[in-house]
Amino acid sequence: MPDVVSLIRIKRDNLRPLTDPEINWLFAAYADGEVADEQMAALLMAIYLNGLDAAELRAWTGEMIASGERLDLSGLGRPTVDKHSTGGVGDKVSLVLAPLVASCGAAVPMLSGRGLGHTGGTLDKLESIRGWRASLGNDELLAALAEAGAVIAAAGSGLAPADRRLYALRDVTGTVESIPLIASSIMSKKIAEGTDALVLDVKTGSGAFMADQEDAVRLATVMAGLGAEHGVRTRALVTRMEAPLGRAVGNALEVAEAVAALSGDGPPDLMEVTLALARHMLDLAGIDADPARAIASGRALDTWKKMIKVQGGDPDAPLPRAAHRQAALPAPGDGYVARLDALAVGVAAWRLGAGRARKEDGVSYTAGVRCLAKPGDRVRAGEPVLELHADDPDRFAAALEALDGALTVTGEPPVLPPLIVAQVGA
Amino acid sequence: MPDVVSLIRIKRDNLRPLTDPEINWLFAAYADGEVADEQMAALLMAIYLNGLDAAELRAWTGEMIASGERLDLSGLGRPTVDKHSTGGVGDKVSLVLAPLVASCGAAVPMLSGRGLGHTGGTLDKLESIRGWRASLGNDELLAALAEAGAVIAAAGSGLAPADRRLYALRDVTGTVESIPLIASSIMSKKIAEGTDALVLDVKTGSGAFMADQEDAVRLATVMAGLGAEHGVRTRALVTRMEAPLGRAVGNALEVAEAVAALSGDGPPDLMEVTLALARHMLDLAGIDADPARAIASGRALDTWKKMIKVQGGDPDAPLPRAAHRQAALPAPGDGYVARLDALAVGVAAWRLGAGRARKEDGVSYTAGVRCLAKPGDRVRAGEPVLELHADDPDRFAAALEALDGALTVTGEPPVLPPLIVAQVGA
Repeated sequence: MPDVVSLIRIKRDNLRPLTDPEINWLFAAYADGEVADEQMAALLMAIYLNGLDAAELRAWTGEMIASGERLDLSGLGRPTVDKHSTGGVGDKVSLVLAPLVASCGAAVPMLSGRGLGHTGGTLDKLESIRGWRASLGNDELLAALAEAGAVIAAAGSGLAPADRRLYALRDVTGTVESIPLIASSIMSKKIAEGTDALVLDVKTGSGAFMADQEDAVRLATVMAGLGAEHGVRTRALVTRMEAPLGRAVGNALEVAEAVAALSGDGPPDLMEVTLALARHMLDLAGIDADPARAIASGRALDTWKKMIKVQGGDPDAPLPRAAHRQAALPAPGDGYVARLDALAVGVAAWRLGAGRARKEDGVSYTAGVRCLAKPGDRVRAGEPVLELHADDPDRFAAALEALDGALTVTGEPPVLPPLIVAQVGA
Repeated sequence: MPDVVSLIRIKRDNLRPLTDPEINWLFAAYADGEVADEQMAALLMAIYLNGLDAAELRAWTGEMIASGERLDLSGLGRPTVDKHSTGGVGDKVSLVLAPLVASCGAAVPMLSGRGLGHTGGTLDKLESIRGWRASLGNDELLAALAEAGAVIAAAGSGLAPADRRLYALRDVTGTVESIPLIASSIMSKKIAEGTDALVLDVKTGSGAFMADQEDAVRLATVMAGLGAEHGVRTRALVTRMEAPLGRAVGNALEVAEAVAALSGDGPPDLMEVTLALARHMLDLAGIDADPARAIASGRALDTWKKMIKVQGGDPDAPLPRAAHRQAALPAPGDGYVARLDALAVGVAAWRLGAGRARKEDGVSYTAGVRCLAKPGDRVRAGEPVLELHADDPDRFAAALEALDGALTVTGEPPVLPPLIVAQVGA
């Protein structure tokens, strides 16, 4: 029988890969309390620094999936396909994509987590809609999927519970930003969710979790491989996140922009990424349909309304608005916005109240940032590029501090690189 | 104010050394429970893999010392000097050295821990003497030192309590074998003990904790530097531990050999190391005396008896003896013992009952191994090289297994390298 100190030493000294039976024993012993959190923390740090090879990662992810239930969506009679984003500033793509792809004939079982840090969370955004609730039981989930074709809901505690515990431990032990650990965490939940196919949006750039493009491609490749190994057709796009996506950052502000996008009135960068992801999802689902027409025809917006209603929300209720607004980032001269730093805007929105620092914190639904100009847009000297929204005006000062140096204006229009930089997988 | 995840990340990514205020905060927060064991475990693994530089190590060790009391031995009116060994098989040098150096005029405050693993512990050895007790309060300690000139006792819980907690954590998280962490653990206790001067015996070779000689020299250098930085004149010898030191391995067996050594009848390798360490200790203490004469004159043995009596022991009581003996390791042919592997003999003694696998375990005072022949000795074919001692004859099989391959006999007498291989520090 393995003992945990020996396993830690093997990873620590990179002696050899851990075997499938060792990883199996480890997860069972951790679940039983035989392996303590401090021992798992030491092992996670050794894995952070020395990695996991493909076979270890497959076994590790397999144990996370096997720690809970795996949903069976085969009774829906429709191809299932989901999308997961590693998170970006102003990234409300999920809100548009789920009803859009469902309106083309797929079932989209989008189980999601809460946001932590500056990138926001899809559930937090939807909760700004009056009456909408994130938690559904498995039966409710299946009923909602049958009814609306798409569901965005909180991943239940029965899905990959080992990941839930490990993620909480990684969060407090400085072992989050590890490619194999990120990949196994994301993919175990998505595989357990029961989807047949999956499109990943791996963000890269200043506002992304993986700032470095090479790391993003590596993460995309590892996740696509894990999906394939566990029977989920998986394709990953690597997309640029140097500036906020769209013009709205913050919960209710992003919902409003998503509704605009579903109504055919979305900002071009948001539509570029959303339509590309939609086409890949439909391709993997084997559905020949044009998502742009689903928007133009009004079907996508209808599906959105149905999806919101099924979960108790009122899609026609006015969204909450912040009590206070303040203009920010005046253009230093006439010219073109060449750079609007996503991370700075994300941190500003976070400090205004849109995001949480700790899991226990609540979020403000109204706080956030509107981009009055985006990269490529013309501005005049003194014209504000951002509008800050907050319920508590005392928060403006810290937000403004985060925005220091976030804007570059040039005399000539900038050349904007393409948003989609790589594609890997199925 | 620092937060622990940021500190973990700094060490994890080797961004820069931690500062003195950060290390100070860390120890305070760990003591308060604000930093949890799993967070410290992740940090220890990051330190294990990325190291601590000299300034970090000084601060780390300083915090461990400051976590408890530092004894004041200045009232003794004698120079104080101690010795610490990193532990070897048959290493009973402390038992001989403390009374020997005390009999030459120094005060030797030898505070010690329990043995763990195959190298045995000085306190376990002394506890085989009828009535002897390891635990003394600080007043008893000073009184014993004043009376006998030497004391070997358990380090009280008031000395470097942070080290005690960290060591227990390292023990279960695979983070023991780190040079900076070993150095700070040993040196914090020795510095807190209040000695003016310190000689370190850093063992290298098969039976030592640091098998590799370069690592041993590095550890010796780091420890000598830490001593100097905290005002303790420190010198380190690196000594070879390829074969057991002396002929006895096991608690009461080693006490008997130590008494023989104090009586002028010690085996040559034990005497070589002991006298060298004694001369260095006396040199650092500024005492001009010949330890060999202290043995020849009987003064060293008198001091031993006084030292044992002060702690309740009866130095004249017969030592316990094992109920069962078994010959082992027959020489495969006529010739000379060229190699008798220290690790194998240590593990055999441990399996016979002389050592403990876990802190909570007890030890057998009588179990162990006697070396009937040592490297350089002549043997005849079939003659056993070892004699195993145990109270439980069922243990012989596992001990014999550990000894497989432990003996090399050659036709020509082997060339034995010197025992003392390096000297560093003051």
